[in-house]
Amino acid sequence: MTTEAALAIDLGGTELRAALVDRDGKILAFSAVPTQAQAGPDVVIGQIEALAATVHAEAPAITVVGVGVGAPGPLDPLAGIAVGPPTLAGWQDVPLADILERRLGLPVRLENDANAAALGEWRFGAGHGARSLVFVTVSTGIGGGVVVDGRILHGRRGLAAEIGHMTITNEGERCVCGVVGCFEAIASGTALGRRANAATSAFDGSTLRRLSANAEVTGRHVVEAARLEDDLAVALLEEEARWLGVGFTNLLHLYSPDVLVVGGGIANGLDLMAPVIEATIRQRAMRAYRDVPVVEAQLGRHAGLVGAASLVLFDDGNLAARMPVGPSTYPDIRRDFKG
Amino acid sequence: MTTEAALAIDLGGTELRAALVDRDGKILAFSAVPTQAQAGPDVVIGQIEALAATVHAEAPAITVVGVGVGAPGPLDPLAGIAVGPPTLAGWQDVPLADILERRLGLPVRLENDANAAALGEWRFGAGHGARSLVFVTVSTGIGGGVVVDGRILHGRRGLAAEIGHMTITNEGERCVCGVVGCFEAIASGTALGRRANAATSAFDGSTLRRLSANAEVTGRHVVEAARLEDDLAVALLEEEARWLGVGFTNLLHLYSPDVLVVGGGIANGLDLMAPVIEATIRQRAMRAYRDVPVVEAQLGRHAGLVGAASLVLFDDGNLAARMPVGPSTYPDIRRDFKG
Repeated sequence: MTTEAALAIDLGGTELRAALVDRDGKILAFSAVPTQAQAGPDVVIGQIEALAATVHAEAPAITVVGVGVGAPGPLDPLAGIAVGPPTLAGWQDVPLADILERRLGLPVRLENDANAAALGEWRFGAGHGARSLVFVTVSTGIGGGVVVDGRILHGRRGLAAEIGHMTITNEGERCVCGVVGCFEAIASGTALGRRANAATSAFDGSTLRRLSANAEVTGRHVVEAARLEDDLAVALLEEEARWLGVGFTNLLHLYSPDVLVVGGGIANGLDLMAPVIEATIRQRAMRAYRDVPVVEAQLGRHAGLVGAASLVLFDDGNLAARMPVGPSTYPDIRRDFKG
Repeated sequence: MTTEAALAIDLGGTELRAALVDRDGKILAFSAVPTQAQAGPDVVIGQIEALAATVHAEAPAITVVGVGVGAPGPLDPLAGIAVGPPTLAGWQDVPLADILERRLGLPVRLENDANAAALGEWRFGAGHGARSLVFVTVSTGIGGGVVVDGRILHGRRGLAAEIGHMTITNEGERCVCGVVGCFEAIASGTALGRRANAATSAFDGSTLRRLSANAEVTGRHVVEAARLEDDLAVALLEEEARWLGVGFTNLLHLYSPDVLVVGGGIANGLDLMAPVIEATIRQRAMRAYRDVPVVEAQLGRHAGLVGAASLVLFDDGNLAARMPVGPSTYPDIRRDFKG
């Protein structure tokens, strides 16, 4: 009996990763290369093909039933088009799903990387067994995905759950998007690091600067120092936890998930932040929302791969409406791109 | 040929309304009485039965295929239970759907009133033809509902889309829920009226006080005075529009609807506020979200009735999982209530 699996691709701006994932969410083969992000889509698509061959060679007995791709947004999951990811140069309305279907001879599903991670955590990770889940990734920025009854909440053009640019206050640094008060601008790992840098200076003897070797302090250094019970780091992490609590309360009110799953670089400090996050939610959320668990993601950096795989392994209605392989209904885009 | 219709009930805290609604969303019969909100569920359920008989007598040739009830939350739409609406005394975990099924001998669906209105606007009103819609009602408070691919976004216990208690700032009056910065606390009709009262005083000769006969100024008076080009009212309405724009931008980022529909008492000033609302969205929303139309609701106070009716007229998956008539799976609740 041959084992069936999906080829999962995680198309990141710095790393391109591929895996074979079976129906239990198990990774049977894995390979990664640095993404040639500046070289344009032709080169990167060549990298994907090569990586696909590499992982397949690792596990030649596996029958690959399809390809799931997680990629940075904005993208159109129903049409399978990468609209214009800011971390990949020259990608503009690339019909990636169709191109890969022709090159690899397999059905392909394309999904926003945060949505793919949300689906992965829902099916195999911290949200297993929940009807609905909100996944929030807190690292350089804040992103997320929402799964309702096993389906990704897409909305118009697949753009739902742009969690990082939810306004939650009128204070703090201006966001990269230009607005003051975005969840991301005040509660991302970057924001935490910025506050830590402002509170210290190189060679001041602080634990934070010691951990950063007197270079720039990051959110990860704050978590590390807080574990050492450094007072400043503990206070900075409490402020971070309070802002996360404000944003999470909004997400509970707006999506009413069964569970809120936190991933990303800052999630490794979730245990330290949990008391303040929970106190903030108890204080701000209406009664019926207060007992929703806030838990750490379980699949780590593999959440996106596993979620992308599950798009093709399970016929759960996600992307069911994606156009079939065949003559494109997007002739203009196709003409512009030599796929 | 007999016409088929649904019996729709809108169980408000002040008014109880009933209608027969056909598959085109047309109201074939209508009746309303003041809700005996202080008299407890037994009396109000008796009122519903009487009202059902009244509207049926108005159109005796109609075949009634089911009953859709819109009621104030919190309620559990899947279980058909009114959990504890604050505007109805003595209602605590009342299995309203089951009780009405026994009394009326028809299938019954229960839905949050704002969700029912959202569904009504999606099927027959301002959101007709959209895949997904966000409905926001701005009056005494702010409420709403979200429809995705023709299905109400329920989330855990039907509690999704608690839009009014989304934190959008850290300023303004404390909300009834106890938190500072709720969308409702700063942008409801009540908040607009409060700012208008603070800016005027009785017998000061202002247009606003003239319109209110020197009594308390309401949001409606502000809209009225702004139509007369009163400078103060125009400025107050601009501030209101700016806050609505901040909240609406969040809703676009979070749900990515095809259209955002605004109802409630303040919606009759939407034409006056539209330029500032749109400017605020253009300024704050990420590019891909800026061109989503923000439109006035079309069904007025009948949106909830029409939406409640459509719960039973269309087999669209809404509440498909409601428990069937028969032995209850909620014995404790059932024992406590003499249905």
